[in-house]
Amino acid sequence: MDCIFCKIINKEIPSYKIYEDEYTYAFLDIAKDVDGHTLVIPKKHVDNVLDCDDKTLEHVTKTIKKIANHYINDCNYTGCNIINASGIDAQQSVMHLHFHIVPRKKNDEVDAWPHFSGAKIPLEQIHKLLQIEDDK
Amino acid sequence: MDCIFCKIINKEIPSYKIYEDEYTYAFLDIAKDVDGHTLVIPKKHVDNVLDCDDKTLEHVTKTIKKIANHYINDCNYTGCNIINASGIDAQQSVMHLHFHIVPRKKNDEVDAWPHFSGAKIPLEQIHKLLQIEDDK
Repeated sequence: MDCIFCKIINKEIPSYKIYEDEYTYAFLDIAKDVDGHTLVIPKKHVDNVLDCDDKTLEHVTKTIKKIANHYINDCNYTGCNIINASGIDAQQSVMHLHFHIVPRKKNDEVDAWPHFSGAKIPLEQIHKLLQIEDDK
Repeated sequence: MDCIFCKIINKEIPSYKIYEDEYTYAFLDIAKDVDGHTLVIPKKHVDNVLDCDDKTLEHVTKTIKKIANHYINDCNYTGCNIINASGIDAQQSVMHLHFHIVPRKKNDEVDAWPHFSGAKIPLEQIHKLLQIEDDK
């Protein structure tokens, strides 16, 4: 498969590996946009959260938690941001599920919150469009 | 407990509920910063991803996936961004685990990617600081 992340998992393309287990692989993003920018991916190719089976998503989530705690307990960071884009229209660039982890420190001058420009639809109206019936 | 999200779960504070099941609750963020801004939280109070037990994280992740797919399959969206801040230094504002979901459409003019200002530490150096030994 012509997927760059599958090639990284298979070591066809080198990477700065942070962590690997049977189901997941984590490595540094080479964008050099923010220190410690890490990507966590499943070894099984799925496009994104939308089409990911529960078991694979569980493995990915466990690895995210493991790495975030490692960064804080062992690497002198004090927080982490976790970011995912699912779908091309959500600015997903590589169509292999990946979560970004950005390790954070007090006064690191990193702003990991997007600059949203304001909602256009009233809350009451969007609520009617989006709500799901109870599953209780 | 004096937690605003626990009060929302217990209906002491009203919310625009999107979805609820035994373990999780989802509702619209009232910041009105971007259309459809949704928060997914566990009913069990945990601070963030770092201290969240695996089972609770699994429930939250399943709900995120359910809502993201609902927005796309039923509500005319074509993508979703998923964002989390874990820790005050990661800009977490409410200390009850929450994932943001931002539903997306083609040409919606939303930019959900943070404006990072560039890494300061070379990749080779940060890699040595952050890598975890293999668990294979």
